[in-house]
Amino acid sequence: MTAMVNLNADMGEGFGAYDIGNDAALLKIVRSANIACGFHASDPVIMQRLVTLAKAQGVSLGAHPGFNDLWGFGRRQILMNTQELEYMVAYQIGALQAMACYAGDPVTHVKPHGALNNMAATDEAMAMAIGRAIKTVDASLIFVAPAGSAMVTAAHRLGLPLAREGFADRRYEDDGTLTPRRISGSVLADAAEAATQVLRMVQAGEVVSRQGNTISMRVDTICVHGDEPSAVVVAGAVRQQLEAAGVAVVRLPDMLAR
Amino acid sequence: MTAMVNLNADMGEGFGAYDIGNDAALLKIVRSANIACGFHASDPVIMQRLVTLAKAQGVSLGAHPGFNDLWGFGRRQILMNTQELEYMVAYQIGALQAMACYAGDPVTHVKPHGALNNMAATDEAMAMAIGRAIKTVDASLIFVAPAGSAMVTAAHRLGLPLAREGFADRRYEDDGTLTPRRISGSVLADAAEAATQVLRMVQAGEVVSRQGNTISMRVDTICVHGDEPSAVVVAGAVRQQLEAAGVAVVRLPDMLAR
Amino acid sequence: MTAMVNLNADMGEGFGAYDIGNDAALLKIVRSANIACGFHASDPVIMQRLVTLAKAQGVSLGAHPGFNDLWGFGRRQILMNTQELEYMVAYQIGALQAMACYAGDPVTHVKPHGALNNMAATDEAMAMAIGRAIKTVDASLIFVAPAGSAMVTAAHRLGLPLAREGFADRRYEDDGTLTPRRISGSVLADAAEAATQVLRMVQAGEVVSRQGNTISMRVDTICVHGDEPSAVVVAGAVRQQLEAAGVAVVRLPDMLAR
Amino acid sequence: MTAMVNLNADMGEGFGAYDIGNDAALLKIVRSANIACGFHASDPVIMQRLVTLAKAQGVSLGAHPGFNDLWGFGRRQILMNTQELEYMVAYQIGALQAMACYAGDPVTHVKPHGALNNMAATDEAMAMAIGRAIKTVDASLIFVAPAGSAMVTAAHRLGLPLAREGFADRRYEDDGTLTPRRISGSVLADAAEAATQVLRMVQAGEVVSRQGNTISMRVDTICVHGDEPSAVVVAGAVRQQLEAAGVAVVRLPDMLAR
Repeated sequence: MTAMVNLNADMGEGFGAYDIGNDAALLKIVRSANIACGFHASDPVIMQRLVTLAKAQGVSLGAHPGFNDLWGFGRRQILMNTQELEYMVAYQIGALQAMACYAGDPVTHVKPHGALNNMAATDEAMAMAIGRAIKTVDASLIFVAPAGSAMVTAAHRLGLPLAREGFADRRYEDDGTLTPRRISGSVLADAAEAATQVLRMVQAGEVVSRQGNTISMRVDTICVHGDEPSAVVVAGAVRQQLEAAGVAVVRLPDMLAR
Repeated sequence: MTAMVNLNADMGEGFGAYDIGNDAALLKIVRSANIACGFHASDPVIMQRLVTLAKAQGVSLGAHPGFNDLWGFGRRQILMNTQELEYMVAYQIGALQAMACYAGDPVTHVKPHGALNNMAATDEAMAMAIGRAIKTVDASLIFVAPAGSAMVTAAHRLGLPLAREGFADRRYEDDGTLTPRRISGSVLADAAEAATQVLRMVQAGEVVSRQGNTISMRVDTICVHGDEPSAVVVAGAVRQQLEAAGVAVVRLPDMLAR
Repeated sequence: MTAMVNLNADMGEGFGAYDIGNDAALLKIVRSANIACGFHASDPVIMQRLVTLAKAQGVSLGAHPGFNDLWGFGRRQILMNTQELEYMVAYQIGALQAMACYAGDPVTHVKPHGALNNMAATDEAMAMAIGRAIKTVDASLIFVAPAGSAMVTAAHRLGLPLAREGFADRRYEDDGTLTPRRISGSVLADAAEAATQVLRMVQAGEVVSRQGNTISMRVDTICVHGDEPSAVVVAGAVRQQLEAAGVAVVRLPDMLAR
Repeated sequence: MTAMVNLNADMGEGFGAYDIGNDAALLKIVRSANIACGFHASDPVIMQRLVTLAKAQGVSLGAHPGFNDLWGFGRRQILMNTQELEYMVAYQIGALQAMACYAGDPVTHVKPHGALNNMAATDEAMAMAIGRAIKTVDASLIFVAPAGSAMVTAAHRLGLPLAREGFADRRYEDDGTLTPRRISGSVLADAAEAATQVLRMVQAGEVVSRQGNTISMRVDTICVHGDEPSAVVVAGAVRQQLEAAGVAVVRLPDMLAR
């Protein structure tokens, strides 16, 4: 059986006259796009353009819901109750589903953004709220969740399709969490090193921690970032390395269909 | 064949801590609800509550998209190009469709709000943009448009299901347009008079203009307002009068299914 | 020397078409108004109206800055860094100062709103950030802070004029904090009881805690709420009782001028 | 007497994580900055940074109020009544005044942005509304208005200090209005040509129209744009050419003090 993995990236995170990221370059590297839905970034015009561009590149569509916080780009924690949070996520999924009609391609996954993602990674009530939103709107949507997070548990409990996510360019701790950015060496800026880490996750289901230990890390999808030009280079190297090693880089729905 | 008509009202137009209108009272009178979608009013929590309440009363669900203008409650004209406008409407329809999943009831119609509705009533390019948004997201959605407006033409051109709308409490001019509010007598505050006007539209397909002439006015649905307590009384009287005259007051999908 | 105290209330917390609270009734009872500044509530039109109404009633003007969170009415905690928070507060003070030019009356105090107020009551860094904003914009502005809070400390450290605030209708714990609302009896709905509590704070500088102990509680201003009609009754009773007991109810600047 | 002119540019038009324009480069060329105030662009953090940077370069501070339209970057016409518009402008001026306290430099001028500027250039009621906002908040603020526009008339009627504005890189029609962008040759992309046009305005008070006629064009300030790198080159060439010709390039307050 051929080894497979998905590559995903956040996209469509501009707003109105503002542009950010490297969507065009990333669309040629990844196989699934997490598209901002108008709360932490994006607007209907950008969403329409992104779904069309992604479709043209054969990239599968995902919703990337975030907090209602354009000023903070969804990176600020906002404390709301779980009902508000659930409906906020459902609303954003629906908005992208409508825009996806312009591409004639369905939305097939959901990946929370920024502070929402970070909080729900450890907060079970938030993870379940996001899961319920997904399940209510479309129970066939794939919940993309950091490997080992509370969202993985929520997906299991709710019976949702799940894609466990690993990071190409981030170091891991012994307990499987990401090394905080304030610690030196938390980001792998070297493309070769990132590609090696990804390959080991995909082929062996493990990663070498910052502490130097080999820990279990089974992943279905790898997140690559595009905020800086260098990140695009890393992403490209990761894909090339994966394919050189015979790993198939596929869309999320194909990943879970095996 | 039994005479039929639909009654519709705008709802869910609060925001966060703010409430407005008489949704609970109107849900007992009308058969179709136009639910604000978060741009001129409403939020995900209100939308979830409204679809659930409407479902419980057997009231059919419609999207009520407006300009991105909470401060102006969607009553200010905003000049954007037709692509922006089209995608803005599509986004809002999708958002409500997702929230409607909480009621297990589909969205079955779309009626633009405020300045968007007024502008598109006479602006063909805007009317077509709204129509394209509806057609792209779900070509079976009923386009609720003022009788005789450019949106009626757009619905025909695009092959969309159409419900022509009349007003219970507004006077008409000889040319079939509404008498401007600045003209005395433009609003029918008297419940009996409003009910009589509606009955004539439904039974005879005509209305008596401010100038005293009988003009053609074929309608499928009647809009009642709920901003003031008196408006709810008028709406109740209209429904009672219709039923007393043997007119069936039905949901929008049933209206068009005949 | 005559005993004195100030009564303050939050006002102008509507938005666009939305109204909330009982501003007209409260303006006849209190002597200082905390006016929302457009972030958690209010808009330029409401602010202009409020400063004019307050001036006409001889009520002194204060800024009531909150988080940028209209949906959550400023009641949701948002985690931003202290620089962002400081500039956000400064911006709102300036906005109200401009609107106060329409009344020809200066802004004389600042009282944070909702979650911002609750967080800064115990978070020293936030309290100092708010204090620095006040000091930078106008070092003569009175910082209204809950008695015993971190904002009192911040006002002292920064050399800002300070008004310590007590609550008419809330029960206190032995440590001087407010009894959480989830605990039965945390709100004094009885007007006479509220008035008695206020009188004791003003005349003796103490309050009887929920646990039955007499604790120190020196206050310069009393906050009354206006969200419900009953609250207005309580506020009116408090003022009447104070004046019957010979306590002068004065504007905030007069309170500190003694 | 030495010939003088001011150079101004729009700045601080990013938002949160979004950046736009070339503020750093422009601050070395112009003498007055029009700083966005949080409605069409900018936020408290950006405003604080800009006033500090401008102060460091000896650039005078101006408010650049726009419509409440971040999505449309203030370029969409929004139809509101003149009271709403007036208070919206006053609010934004006050917000920047507060942020300017961080630089210890006063706001000395006001220049409307985008659609607001374009509409008020020909709409007298809007021009007067903006003028009243300026006069109410600070009657010593300089109203920067396109030469020949309704805002020039409003400034005269209200007795406000006025700076008439010309454009370096735009062609004029015989009637003194700007050649619409849709007409070929409406933008002067050539730096030398732009500098020549500016020099003639400043030294002779005239400009050669698209039709080839010499028309009167007395200006106090020249607007340069910074949206594209080429625009910065044009701006730099204009300043160099002016100084080479012995024209003093001064701050707006110095321009009017002569």
